[in-house]
Amino acid sequence: MACRVLGTCSIQLIDSRKEAVDLDEFESIRLWTDSRQSAERQREQGVIVGIGDDAAVVEAPQGEGGTLQWLMAVDTMVETVHFNAATMAEADVGWKSLAANVSDIAAMGGVPRHALVSVSVPRAWEPAGIRRLYDGLYACAEQYGVAIVGGDTTSSPLHLVVAVTVMGTIEAGKAIRRAGAQPGDVVFVTGPVGMAAAGLHWLLAAAASGQAAAAPAQPAGGGAAGSPPCVPLAAAEAAGVAALVQAHRRPAPSVRAARLLAARGTVTSLNDVSDGLASEAWEIAEASGISLSLRESRLPLSGSMAAYAHRVHTSPLEWMLYGGEDYVLLGTIAAGDAQAAKAELAAAGLPMYLIGEVSAGPAGVELIRDLTSADSYNQRHSAQYAAEAEAPREPIAKRGYNHFAQ
Amino acid sequence: MACRVLGTCSIQLIDSRKEAVDLDEFESIRLWTDSRQSAERQREQGVIVGIGDDAAVVEAPQGEGGTLQWLMAVDTMVETVHFNAATMAEADVGWKSLAANVSDIAAMGGVPRHALVSVSVPRAWEPAGIRRLYDGLYACAEQYGVAIVGGDTTSSPLHLVVAVTVMGTIEAGKAIRRAGAQPGDVVFVTGPVGMAAAGLHWLLAAAASGQAAAAPAQPAGGGAAGSPPCVPLAAAEAAGVAALVQAHRRPAPSVRAARLLAARGTVTSLNDVSDGLASEAWEIAEASGISLSLRESRLPLSGSMAAYAHRVHTSPLEWMLYGGEDYVLLGTIAAGDAQAAKAELAAAGLPMYLIGEVSAGPAGVELIRDLTSADSYNQRHSAQYAAEAEAPREPIAKRGYNHFAQ
Repeated sequence: MACRVLGTCSIQLIDSRKEAVDLDEFESIRLWTDSRQSAERQREQGVIVGIGDDAAVVEAPQGEGGTLQWLMAVDTMVETVHFNAATMAEADVGWKSLAANVSDIAAMGGVPRHALVSVSVPRAWEPAGIRRLYDGLYACAEQYGVAIVGGDTTSSPLHLVVAVTVMGTIEAGKAIRRAGAQPGDVVFVTGPVGMAAAGLHWLLAAAASGQAAAAPAQPAGGGAAGSPPCVPLAAAEAAGVAALVQAHRRPAPSVRAARLLAARGTVTSLNDVSDGLASEAWEIAEASGISLSLRESRLPLSGSMAAYAHRVHTSPLEWMLYGGEDYVLLGTIAAGDAQAAKAELAAAGLPMYLIGEVSAGPAGVELIRDLTSADSYNQRHSAQYAAEAEAPREPIAKRGYNHFAQ
Repeated sequence: MACRVLGTCSIQLIDSRKEAVDLDEFESIRLWTDSRQSAERQREQGVIVGIGDDAAVVEAPQGEGGTLQWLMAVDTMVETVHFNAATMAEADVGWKSLAANVSDIAAMGGVPRHALVSVSVPRAWEPAGIRRLYDGLYACAEQYGVAIVGGDTTSSPLHLVVAVTVMGTIEAGKAIRRAGAQPGDVVFVTGPVGMAAAGLHWLLAAAASGQAAAAPAQPAGGGAAGSPPCVPLAAAEAAGVAALVQAHRRPAPSVRAARLLAARGTVTSLNDVSDGLASEAWEIAEASGISLSLRESRLPLSGSMAAYAHRVHTSPLEWMLYGGEDYVLLGTIAAGDAQAAKAELAAAGLPMYLIGEVSAGPAGVELIRDLTSADSYNQRHSAQYAAEAEAPREPIAKRGYNHFAQ
């Protein structure tokens, strides 16, 4: 917990009365983290020493059926790159910065357990704004059973930066990598794709048209004192896009699905959809040296996303393939176990969509355009699918989504 | 490894010909991390999956005498807060961002093992500058036997931010906390204090007087294309302050000392001196509910620091007590074992200075001014010490150093 060299050791912020506040690092950490998590949660995750010493101390949990291995991942959110004051409230930033890491652990088939949180805070932020960031972070931690065990707080010259590290465990030898996909396997995803990108599309448009400022009063979003509040959820509800906005702000990683799938032993590759279905499919294809064929008719489509795409004259397919930040899982599974896995997840109330097949290399990803027209997205269930033999096949580009290029 | 929302997925940088370069995240990670560490190093630390999947997978190492517990710490360095283009070259930033975390593991008595590296890179940086940052990071990793197992790379609007997480291990129940100091214990440090602060003092003065720009050509410091190079070590050598500058740029955490001390079982509290001797002593005093008395005559003094302090008419004591970033260890040990511990460390070529005593609370830190005059710092070994009974005692403030207040 070192805090400064060129600046002072304290964190300087502006309070609600627009006055400068100097918090020393320990005061600020206490203010934001004290008594936020139950002793049970910390004990359950084997925490011996939590926040407040040089390092956290945790006991290695015992695997039921044998040894466990550790999983470790870090993910960083940077103001203006991953969010701004209009697109996300502070609590959303806290939630999502942890959720993105929990998703990385799920993408290996593991159990998330411990997190460390590094927050670099600009001077213009209110202490209460950072408190709200931690509200979201702790809410996500409770949702996924993660113990927050430590962190670092520093000043930042201009932009908020949140770097979260998550440690998890997996039964020894059972981590699911990207490289195991085999010809004949079935491709699956554990939830709809493209919703987060559509939500962001709406948020940026709403912010540009001044909806954030015009919206009815709500707890001030945007941590900086005096900055415009974030676009309120009420405005998204009124526009029929609340589910899309929440998909962007509060992603829900597929941890339960990951654990059920990992236990079957038939999943041959797994990725979380952080950078878009196309990009993640390409990673599996290249790592495994195989080709993935995705069927357009099978891609899980959100009705509200399709409706919004129609309104703004955009193809939902662009968001579905290239949108990213959905934090569902994309993977491949032995063909003989695909339906049984789907049934097991359904019994647990979890979706699993079988969206394509694996064939022998060279590495590539293609889309089988087996819908008769783009319009039929809105009448999906009654759409006529093109006969298999006739359906055209198109290569899917190895790229992510560029929000500025729209 | 998610990379963007509002920006693009690629990392945009400026190359040496001042042209914009777009690197996708995987290209950039490969460019900076491929083949940088031996397979032996990774195997030795039980790495099953390293950089390149959603999360790293590592085997829990086996303790020789029983179960191990895990230690986890994160530390972040922010451009303009912890360094700038004049004070540190990119490789120094890489070294120090890992060293600060290694020091946190040492401060619990543990063995550092694995690191995750999150780098947020401003557009103005050259790819070669980030490569040099990783040079320093990997050099530090080799020095301390740490396997780099993963990370995240994002864009940053203006300032470089490096957040490093280190995982280590400690024999179960043996982690040394801050709260165990007992009346009668002896206070120790494992190296000189104040050198890093003195080095930074010189660096800021040199930068202000234009020594960075006037210095002979060297590999460009400062990652931003076109930014002034960092103050060269040759200039520090010419000024007789190279050791001070290196103490600031390349701190050497006391891992070996920590392990030898932890094995004795007589160390009752331990901290690393990241925020200054005074601040760390206060942490132990408050956590343990005791009072620490430090003897001025016993504080380990660097000759080059004392000489530089004399030249700039500063009291070396200010740097020694409040300077910070020394990354030596401050702790307390049972009085009966202090000399034997010192002898064991000496036999291993490691310093240990017995600098004071613990007495019953209330929590506090005082300095016994047992040197006859401030001048005697320069004639330390021949100085006349005030007789014990006469030596005045002064409370030591609970604060860090403010470089701007000088």
